[in-house]
Amino acid sequence: MHTAKAREVIDVCGDLAACTEEPGFTTRTFLSEPMREVHSRLRGWMQRIGMSTSIDPAGNLRGVYDGATPAAPRLFIGSHLDTVPHAGRFDGVLGVVAGIALIDLLAGRRFPFSIEVVGFSEEEGVRFGVPFIGSRALAGTFDETLLRRPDPAGRTVREAILDYGLDPTLVEQAVAPEASVGYLEIHIEQGPVLDVLGLPLGVVETIAGQTRANVRFAGAANHAGTTPMEGRHDALAGAAAWILEVERLAKSTPGLVATVGRIDVEPGASNAVPGSCLASLDVRHADDWARRAAVDRLKARAEEIAAARGLLAACDVMLDQAATPMDGPLTGILAQAVERSGAFVHRMASGAGHDAMVLAERLPTAMLFLRSPGGLSHHPDEAVLESDVAAAIGAGMEFFEGLARSRSWPTS
Amino acid sequence: MHTAKAREVIDVCGDLAACTEEPGFTTRTFLSEPMREVHSRLRGWMQRIGMSTSIDPAGNLRGVYDGATPAAPRLFIGSHLDTVPHAGRFDGVLGVVAGIALIDLLAGRRFPFSIEVVGFSEEEGVRFGVPFIGSRALAGTFDETLLRRPDPAGRTVREAILDYGLDPTLVEQAVAPEASVGYLEIHIEQGPVLDVLGLPLGVVETIAGQTRANVRFAGAANHAGTTPMEGRHDALAGAAAWILEVERLAKSTPGLVATVGRIDVEPGASNAVPGSCLASLDVRHADDWARRAAVDRLKARAEEIAAARGLLAACDVMLDQAATPMDGPLTGILAQAVERSGAFVHRMASGAGHDAMVLAERLPTAMLFLRSPGGLSHHPDEAVLESDVAAAIGAGMEFFEGLARSRSWPTS
Repeated sequence: MHTAKAREVIDVCGDLAACTEEPGFTTRTFLSEPMREVHSRLRGWMQRIGMSTSIDPAGNLRGVYDGATPAAPRLFIGSHLDTVPHAGRFDGVLGVVAGIALIDLLAGRRFPFSIEVVGFSEEEGVRFGVPFIGSRALAGTFDETLLRRPDPAGRTVREAILDYGLDPTLVEQAVAPEASVGYLEIHIEQGPVLDVLGLPLGVVETIAGQTRANVRFAGAANHAGTTPMEGRHDALAGAAAWILEVERLAKSTPGLVATVGRIDVEPGASNAVPGSCLASLDVRHADDWARRAAVDRLKARAEEIAAARGLLAACDVMLDQAATPMDGPLTGILAQAVERSGAFVHRMASGAGHDAMVLAERLPTAMLFLRSPGGLSHHPDEAVLESDVAAAIGAGMEFFEGLARSRSWPTS
Repeated sequence: MHTAKAREVIDVCGDLAACTEEPGFTTRTFLSEPMREVHSRLRGWMQRIGMSTSIDPAGNLRGVYDGATPAAPRLFIGSHLDTVPHAGRFDGVLGVVAGIALIDLLAGRRFPFSIEVVGFSEEEGVRFGVPFIGSRALAGTFDETLLRRPDPAGRTVREAILDYGLDPTLVEQAVAPEASVGYLEIHIEQGPVLDVLGLPLGVVETIAGQTRANVRFAGAANHAGTTPMEGRHDALAGAAAWILEVERLAKSTPGLVATVGRIDVEPGASNAVPGSCLASLDVRHADDWARRAAVDRLKARAEEIAAARGLLAACDVMLDQAATPMDGPLTGILAQAVERSGAFVHRMASGAGHDAMVLAERLPTAMLFLRSPGGLSHHPDEAVLESDVAAAIGAGMEFFEGLARSRSWPTS
C-alpha cells in the first residue's frame, strides 16, 4: 500500500538534497541560491497535479489545492525546506514532499476543505541565528525588527528577501486566515524513541517546553603544582559534581531530559586549578510545571554544591519557553487516521521545536512523526524507511477522510 | 636583624618590575628589550660591591665574588630574571637580588669558596614555549636544536641571542665547572603551605615529579531534546564522573596533587549531548612511585567509568618527569643555617619546577623557599613579607658560614 508513492517521496527528497550551498554536503539556508531550484522543482510537480503555486513575501513555497466549493476553508500541510549545515535528506523536506504526494494521490478528488501545502523558507535558524522565519510569517508573529537582522556576511533578512526577488514590505500578506481548518506537519522524529519501540509513526501530543540557562561556578585559580588539595576552590570539580546531579535528576524524572552540552573553564590551562567554569543547561519536558521544578532543583543543587566547596554559583536563565500542546480534536482525528491506516498509535512528546509550535499560536495544529532509524538526524546519514513513509501516506489519506467526516462543512 | 637589607631587596625588586614589555604590567620574556635595563641596574650594584660581571652567551647575568684564594671552588646562587605575562615582582627576581644583597652584606669578607650570582635569562617558557633556557646553559643540557626554535613572531632563540648582542655559537662557555661547590636557589614558594603554617622559610627536599596527560572520553553526540536519558552516551557526563575521581584520589593520597585544568567538549553546543570530551590531567608527587601509581589508577578509573556508560576512554601521557631530590649534604647545611638564623626548619617538596631542578643534573643543589602570602604568585599582587626576606638573608649568611665549616678547603 502506497509503496510506490513512498519510493517517489524518498527519491524526490534525495534529488532535492543536491540543491546545496556546499558541494558534497546538503547545506541550504534561508533563501540561498539553491533554494530557487528546490522551489522550481516542487512548483513544477504541484502545477502538474492541479495546484496553484506562489512564493510568499517571506519566501515560503505555497501550493493550493482547491476544495469542493469556493467557500471551503483551508487545511495547511507543511514543513521547512531549509537545512542545517551538512544535513540529511529528510529533516523538513520530507513533510513538504509528502504533502504534495498526498495531493497527487487524491488524483483530483475534492474535499469540503481546500489544502495548501507550505514549504517554509526557514526553520533551523542557521543563517540569521533566529529560527522559524517562514512559519512566523504564516502565524502572524513575524516581528518587523527581524527584517533588520544581519547574517554573518552583514546581509539583512530584508536584503535576503529582496535578493530573492520578493517584497519584504508585504510579509503580512503571508498570514494564514484565522478561520482556517488547521495545520498538519509530517516530520521525522529526529530521536530514537520510535526506533527503539519498533513503531513507524508517532502522534505528537505536545512539543516540550524548554529552559536554557548558563550556570557559572566561581572559585579561585591556582597553581596546579603548589596548591595542596585541601586549600583548593576548583570550579571545574564543582561543575563536575553538578553535571552528575543534572544527569541523576533527569534519569529519575519520567519524561525529563536535561543536558550540559557546553563548558568553558578559566584559565583553562592544564597546570592551573580552574578558577571559574561556565556550564550550559538545557532542560525539556512536556509538562511546564515538571520542567520548572527540575530547573529550580538544579539551581538549588548548584548552590549547595558550591557552598560545600567554597565556590559561588550563579544561574542565568536565558530561555523559558512553555510547552506547546497540539490541538486536541485535530490530534484525535490524526490518531484515528493512524489507527485506520493500520499502524499502532503511539502518542508522544516532541523534544525538539518545529514549525508546528509556531503555527499552533494561530491555528489548530497536529503533528505526525516518522521513525528515525538509529535516532539519527542533522547528519548526512539521516534516513527513513520506505515502509514508514508509506504508513505516513496512508495515515495522511485517512486524515483527509476523517477530517471531512468530522464536522458539517459550508456547502457553497 | 637584616631588616634594612630586606627592605632594600624588596625595593630593588619593585624597581625592576618597571622593566617591562607591557606598560602597566610586569611582562619580561627571554632577552626582551627591558631585560637590558635589568642587567644594567644589577651589574652596577654588583660592580660597586666588588663583583666582576658579564652576560654569558645564553643571556644569563653573572657576577663573581672571589674567594679567599685563587683556587677556591665556586658556589652558585641564583634564580631567573624573566617573568610570566602580568607577573608579580618577586618570582625569580627575588632570588637574584637576595644573592647580590648577601654579597653586599659580606662587606668584602672572603670565604674559601668564590660565589657567583646568576640571573637566569629564561625559566618561564613564555617566549619559546620551552622553559629553563638559561639554567640549561649552565647545567650543560642546552640542546643545540633549541637555537632553531621560533617565538610566535618567527624569531628564533639564535636570533634573539644575536639581537641582544651575544654569540649563540658560544653557549657552551656558559657551563658551570663540574667541580663547583653547588647551587643555592632562593625563591618564593608560590603556594600556600608556608603561609598556612605561619612559617617564613621552607627547605626544599625534592622538586615533585610530574605527569601530564590527556584523557579522551568518546560517546555519541545527539540532540539534547529528542534523545531520552536512557539512550545517551554523554562524554561530558563520563568526564565529570572521572574528574570527581581525580579529586577523590588526590585528597586521599598524602602529598599528591592532581588537577583537571582544561576540558574541551565536542560538538560543544548547549542543545547537543556531548559526543566527545578531552580532559587534561596534571599529577605531581615528590615520590615517583606514588605519582605513577596514581596515574595508573586514574587511567583505570577512566576506563571503568567509560565502560559503565557505553563510552570509550583513551589516555595519552605526554610528560612523565621524575622527581628531583635536592642534594642531601648541601640541604643539610641549608637546614642548619635556617635553624641557626632562628627560624623554624620546615622541610617540604616543591610542586612547581625551578632552575634548581635543572642545575641538580650537574651540581649539588639546595633550595630555600620564602612564604608567599595567600599563596599568590604569577599575579601582580604577588608579595613577600619584609621579615621573611630578612629571615632568608639571615639564613643565607649562616649558609655561607656553615658551608665554610663543612669541609677542608684547598688553601692555595
